[in-house]
Amino acid sequence: MALHPMQASNVDRGLLLQRYQYVRDFSMQLVEPLSAEDCQIQSMPDTSPTKWHLAHVTWFFETFILVEFLQGYQRLNEEFHYLYNSYYNGAGKQYARPKRGMVTRPSLAQIMEYRLYVDKYMEIILADENHPQAEKIAFLAEIGTHHEQQHQELLLTDIKHGLSKNAINAVYLPRKPEMRVNAPALEWVNFAEGIYEIGHDTLKADAGYAFDNEGPRHKIWLNNFQLASRTVTNEEYLAFMEDGGYQNHDLWLSEGWYFLAHNKRKHPAYWQKRDGAWYQYTLAGWLPLNLAEPVTHINFYEAQAYALWAGARLPTEAEWEVAADDFKAEDVPTLGRYHPNVAQESQGQANSKLLQMIGEVWEWTLSSYAPYPNFAPLEGVVGEYNGKFMCNQYVLRGGSCVTPAQHIRITYRNFFPTAIDWQFTGIRLARNV
Amino acid sequence: MALHPMQASNVDRGLLLQRYQYVRDFSMQLVEPLSAEDCQIQSMPDTSPTKWHLAHVTWFFETFILVEFLQGYQRLNEEFHYLYNSYYNGAGKQYARPKRGMVTRPSLAQIMEYRLYVDKYMEIILADENHPQAEKIAFLAEIGTHHEQQHQELLLTDIKHGLSKNAINAVYLPRKPEMRVNAPALEWVNFAEGIYEIGHDTLKADAGYAFDNEGPRHKIWLNNFQLASRTVTNEEYLAFMEDGGYQNHDLWLSEGWYFLAHNKRKHPAYWQKRDGAWYQYTLAGWLPLNLAEPVTHINFYEAQAYALWAGARLPTEAEWEVAADDFKAEDVPTLGRYHPNVAQESQGQANSKLLQMIGEVWEWTLSSYAPYPNFAPLEGVVGEYNGKFMCNQYVLRGGSCVTPAQHIRITYRNFFPTAIDWQFTGIRLARNV
Amino acid sequence: MALHPMQASNVDRGLLLQRYQYVRDFSMQLVEPLSAEDCQIQSMPDTSPTKWHLAHVTWFFETFILVEFLQGYQRLNEEFHYLYNSYYNGAGKQYARPKRGMVTRPSLAQIMEYRLYVDKYMEIILADENHPQAEKIAFLAEIGTHHEQQHQELLLTDIKHGLSKNAINAVYLPRKPEMRVNAPALEWVNFAEGIYEIGHDTLKADAGYAFDNEGPRHKIWLNNFQLASRTVTNEEYLAFMEDGGYQNHDLWLSEGWYFLAHNKRKHPAYWQKRDGAWYQYTLAGWLPLNLAEPVTHINFYEAQAYALWAGARLPTEAEWEVAADDFKAEDVPTLGRYHPNVAQESQGQANSKLLQMIGEVWEWTLSSYAPYPNFAPLEGVVGEYNGKFMCNQYVLRGGSCVTPAQHIRITYRNFFPTAIDWQFTGIRLARNV
Amino acid sequence: MALHPMQASNVDRGLLLQRYQYVRDFSMQLVEPLSAEDCQIQSMPDTSPTKWHLAHVTWFFETFILVEFLQGYQRLNEEFHYLYNSYYNGAGKQYARPKRGMVTRPSLAQIMEYRLYVDKYMEIILADENHPQAEKIAFLAEIGTHHEQQHQELLLTDIKHGLSKNAINAVYLPRKPEMRVNAPALEWVNFAEGIYEIGHDTLKADAGYAFDNEGPRHKIWLNNFQLASRTVTNEEYLAFMEDGGYQNHDLWLSEGWYFLAHNKRKHPAYWQKRDGAWYQYTLAGWLPLNLAEPVTHINFYEAQAYALWAGARLPTEAEWEVAADDFKAEDVPTLGRYHPNVAQESQGQANSKLLQMIGEVWEWTLSSYAPYPNFAPLEGVVGEYNGKFMCNQYVLRGGSCVTPAQHIRITYRNFFPTAIDWQFTGIRLARNV
Repeated sequence: MALHPMQASNVDRGLLLQRYQYVRDFSMQLVEPLSAEDCQIQSMPDTSPTKWHLAHVTWFFETFILVEFLQGYQRLNEEFHYLYNSYYNGAGKQYARPKRGMVTRPSLAQIMEYRLYVDKYMEIILADENHPQAEKIAFLAEIGTHHEQQHQELLLTDIKHGLSKNAINAVYLPRKPEMRVNAPALEWVNFAEGIYEIGHDTLKADAGYAFDNEGPRHKIWLNNFQLASRTVTNEEYLAFMEDGGYQNHDLWLSEGWYFLAHNKRKHPAYWQKRDGAWYQYTLAGWLPLNLAEPVTHINFYEAQAYALWAGARLPTEAEWEVAADDFKAEDVPTLGRYHPNVAQESQGQANSKLLQMIGEVWEWTLSSYAPYPNFAPLEGVVGEYNGKFMCNQYVLRGGSCVTPAQHIRITYRNFFPTAIDWQFTGIRLARNV
Repeated sequence: MALHPMQASNVDRGLLLQRYQYVRDFSMQLVEPLSAEDCQIQSMPDTSPTKWHLAHVTWFFETFILVEFLQGYQRLNEEFHYLYNSYYNGAGKQYARPKRGMVTRPSLAQIMEYRLYVDKYMEIILADENHPQAEKIAFLAEIGTHHEQQHQELLLTDIKHGLSKNAINAVYLPRKPEMRVNAPALEWVNFAEGIYEIGHDTLKADAGYAFDNEGPRHKIWLNNFQLASRTVTNEEYLAFMEDGGYQNHDLWLSEGWYFLAHNKRKHPAYWQKRDGAWYQYTLAGWLPLNLAEPVTHINFYEAQAYALWAGARLPTEAEWEVAADDFKAEDVPTLGRYHPNVAQESQGQANSKLLQMIGEVWEWTLSSYAPYPNFAPLEGVVGEYNGKFMCNQYVLRGGSCVTPAQHIRITYRNFFPTAIDWQFTGIRLARNV
Repeated sequence: MALHPMQASNVDRGLLLQRYQYVRDFSMQLVEPLSAEDCQIQSMPDTSPTKWHLAHVTWFFETFILVEFLQGYQRLNEEFHYLYNSYYNGAGKQYARPKRGMVTRPSLAQIMEYRLYVDKYMEIILADENHPQAEKIAFLAEIGTHHEQQHQELLLTDIKHGLSKNAINAVYLPRKPEMRVNAPALEWVNFAEGIYEIGHDTLKADAGYAFDNEGPRHKIWLNNFQLASRTVTNEEYLAFMEDGGYQNHDLWLSEGWYFLAHNKRKHPAYWQKRDGAWYQYTLAGWLPLNLAEPVTHINFYEAQAYALWAGARLPTEAEWEVAADDFKAEDVPTLGRYHPNVAQESQGQANSKLLQMIGEVWEWTLSSYAPYPNFAPLEGVVGEYNGKFMCNQYVLRGGSCVTPAQHIRITYRNFFPTAIDWQFTGIRLARNV
Repeated sequence: MALHPMQASNVDRGLLLQRYQYVRDFSMQLVEPLSAEDCQIQSMPDTSPTKWHLAHVTWFFETFILVEFLQGYQRLNEEFHYLYNSYYNGAGKQYARPKRGMVTRPSLAQIMEYRLYVDKYMEIILADENHPQAEKIAFLAEIGTHHEQQHQELLLTDIKHGLSKNAINAVYLPRKPEMRVNAPALEWVNFAEGIYEIGHDTLKADAGYAFDNEGPRHKIWLNNFQLASRTVTNEEYLAFMEDGGYQNHDLWLSEGWYFLAHNKRKHPAYWQKRDGAWYQYTLAGWLPLNLAEPVTHINFYEAQAYALWAGARLPTEAEWEVAADDFKAEDVPTLGRYHPNVAQESQGQANSKLLQMIGEVWEWTLSSYAPYPNFAPLEGVVGEYNGKFMCNQYVLRGGSCVTPAQHIRITYRNFFPTAIDWQFTGIRLARNV
């Protein structure tokens, strides 16, 4: 949500307006295939309506930039302030989260107007280089674009959840069939014990943007370990299931075993068996399960149980970050597939045998989400975000097939509770040596 | 839901098509003021989306008439059969009721097509007087129109509930202000003890349509009793509140007292106090409370407690029906007000001092919903409806301001659980002598 | 809970002390087979610990008689007033009902002391014929003994529920095996239509004691009907089960069908199938099911579904009372069996073919519990009981094998919610003619 | 629950029988002040009845030692195997945990017999030095005694919770009044950055007993940090409350803020304000709050919020263990106080300014409970315990006033979910430098 003040100077002011327009426009593209009704629903308390995402990210720019710094700015509608605040207690009262799906008014059309209204004024203020607070505005505007990119991912995962509730096979976008049916063999890559550094280095000149929870950069000690060369495939996960994985309590955390019983869970989310064959709900509708693709929509309990069954464990977030160190921006796959790809040799990052580290599935780690040593949240209301959730959530790394490419970086710490499975989550194994 | 076989001959075959078109068209008028998003939501498990009502009543004609009796008829979409069945277990599997709000596909536009498609074939089959099953078709078609009228009322009460969830003041239709601010004084009307007959007489030639639960006509014994000349007003109900009605456990049924505590209820549904003045949510949005109007959106517990406080009781359904005996069809107010009116002297039925018996608020009775002596449900799937609910529900009489006029009759037995308040319910007092 | 003031004169003052001692002593006998731990537990919110029953009935005498009328009387322990009040809001604050099982102090031994303490003073006040309020004291003392008899039945049904939760076969009292394995054939007994009177006649000189809800005596109209000569047997109920009764939605009330699904209910409470044979939990522990015994621990939904399957219905409470009119006190079976008996020809009441009307199982009626015409609750705090529950409960008639004999009468209106099954409930069929 | 195989040799075989008898006898002493009824109840699903604790620890010895290794041994009662298994899935079916309070049979007296029965045979097998499996038996017996000591602590915290539910002031054991009303000033103790080792060293000859989760000993990197010299007092915590701590959302984790709202929490568990003065429920009953005592029965959310308010944070478990390194066994306070003491200068461990590190309150750490690098659970059923809970729980360190002295060690990792507060938990602050 927030970055450290000293980073503001990193923002290239000339490029910011361009970035703003790019990000705003991308949200519009994402909504293209949806009807007003699709955009209305909230299929569980954890998700939000598409409409709400579109309005909330706009409210962010309005509230933290326009209202604060654009003289004479009038909110388009005072009630939107109440409706589209999310968890920023400091920014005022909030509409109850689980009831977002009940807000039929304003309509989708009105929210589109709201976006245009705010864009108009944002373009004015971003173009005003002589604004006495130009630096602070730039700083907040960059946060706002990263914030909107976060919501672009959520918009896709939430609408996937919503559309999946239709009895009819609901397609977000059709998808070209995946031709590859074999993943490369899983290999183990070695890493040596020692003192390493992880986290975002806010003091480095070209460090780029990062949220507050990614820093400060700090030392850690790692023992020898190994990381799997790619993520676990549907085929491998099926072998676990067919070996009685969901019936064997020895493999499960106590909470996970209870989760299985309570939810009668016997396979990953979005899977369904019809006449003996497995199908998977995707943003392209129900499709036969491709065995070579990465297993996804796995919760933490399932990831742990699978790892134990496979004689391995999940990596810590420090291990993952140390291993991903040679990742380059150009390695990020383009968004638009909306589903993780089959691994391929050529896909790897330079100087590494590790495939699929980036932009396929969020990889569960063994690390509970906690502050880094000497972590300090960003000051003010925009700093409310990350620190408040450092409890009973686990860190996921690497970005997924629905994460906007520019929003992926190796220090990025995503986090979710153990039971969630509507994100594009997956498994990379680690081992002691 | 159903009428007795011997009644089929009562249906005037020439008028049936006309009635069908009238009822179908009226549903379209009701939806006019709503957006696709308004029609999508389900604000609690007890209510249904507008979209669902529109499709379900259409499914009824398709399933029980077209599929059965129109040779070569093809359902427009097989999946609608699953989506728009409600409680007819005999008619196949059902989509889970509390998830109706998640069905974004088919869209509202597709449901409108579905209506036109079914209307086209219904008009063909109703016009075919030589159909070997013409009598049965007419019989079922009449049921279908009554069924759709029931859902027209629910459509209005459900959308009222849904729109009320908007933080913004959501208006279904603006309403001319009620000018009258005084209700006539409450008087007590006497009825003498004796044997009476109540219920719908299916054997009478001109008895007209009725659901199965309204008959057979049968004898009952009544003691002397009195009925109030009009329903309880907001002013009277406020006096009860201001006298500590909601705080005095002596007035409440044990279940009602628990309901108050559990729901933190301190006033009727849809009421809100702002700066010392009471407002009420109506289909015309939030309006200042008119003290002379009938109190409405009252549950059974509130009705009972008020009656006890007022030194009276609720009437039984037999008392109500005996008293309403001289009601005439022309006394029914026209739909379109969507809110109960202030009582007026001239409004009464011929030969009676009783005002507001019809078409204002559903009047709670003391009578638990139970079969009449020798009651027999209609045979087949269409008979599933009424009998199944004869348990833990209470009878309401008289129709409300959102009941289609032709759907009101004095033998009509509406029924709801004791806690509901999203219907236009109200109170008429009775007394022992 | 209460009787009408004019009845006070009916109480034979000489016999009252004797009755008091008899009832109080009988409670002590009931507790004999139980340990302090058995007396501690509360196995669901609907039941109460044995300890609580013993103390609450004592608190009743203390609060309504000793504290009011015995000069200088000191409560044994002020805290008992808070702990052992039940629903008498007028008598002060109450300890939360579902937490009664947490009250380990006072101990059972202390409650026994409490009983002796109150008995000592009750015997003094009952012997004092010159007390200026002697009549009122006698009136309240008689209520108190009937109240304690009600709790004697609950004590037995509650402890049955509690002991059944033990994994070990827990026996309250061993029981001589029932030798009879055949019930007489079921016959239909005719009753003619007409005006009848039911209810307790408080004006009759020798009417005896009754609760307020049993009166006043009033006229009703009955159609022709038939009543089954005996209650439904386990064998008959098994035939219903084996015919798919629990799987056939056509037989069930909508609420009942939901109850089955929600509770995964497939047979009556306290039944269990082991190696193909049915067993039943009784106060004598787990025993093989005797097919000739009355089916018991049946809820209202099961009773309704069975009746529908059998081509019959449940009787109304008026039908039951009219039919039971020739019942005599000497027909009541002695308590001590703690389980309903197989019907036998000789068991019938004089002048009737009806068997088992009294003291075997509480017979569900079709009648929702409601006030009789001109019903008025007893004045004051002791009148709080019956009226408050006249909502969403159904009337049961006839008394059960755990109802104290002197507590049975044909005007007695027991009532329970539709889902309960831990009472000794059963089914008698009725039919239209 | 378990220790690594190589530790078995550490057990002094001569002392084991003595240890067994000491631990078993201590359980008996703990039950002395309780009635059979006190021992019966289970006041929430998280706690267990005293009776159950007494039986379960006995079942452990019977199941893992006597049944396995004592030829001809017969279980006293086969049903106990089902009733007193807890989470050992590998050891058979289990009785549902939340229903433990319903098991009235066996009685407390029978469980006492069970203990004597198992003790008799345990003494035989422990004395048999020639048993071919003597080493394994010794190994398991030592585990069993540590297991019973864990349950001794739980027995006390659970009975405190149970007795607190009595409306009457229920005293477990009266306690001498605490005379000291001042705690020493809080000071900050410095620790320097660097590589440290933590965890139990299973390879060291004299390492003593430890559970599997305490090892292996491993390197970690720590930054500079400071630790508070003593735990937070009631006085300090009250200052936080009076400063609006419970009303200031900025101080709370998102989950914590929800916890407050959902539970209407406004002060620590077991606190109550009466006439303006604070009281605290203790094992000696309700007592006025002593301001100098450590605040206790604090959950993780409260600990975090307090630390943030105080400008500090919670320590990690590694920081705590490094700081506690010079703790000596003789520093452990004697059990029998059942309540944390006021800090005193003289109480500190040699060579340290840190007071109250041991045996007062369990100190919440920032560390989510996770496996140490290269952790491997103990093989077999006894290894089921610790690993299964490594998820959504936080580590607590130091032992409390109800932890048996011999059961305290600095590598000991206690763990509980964030919301619990019925353990004797407290707060020690840490700071970055």
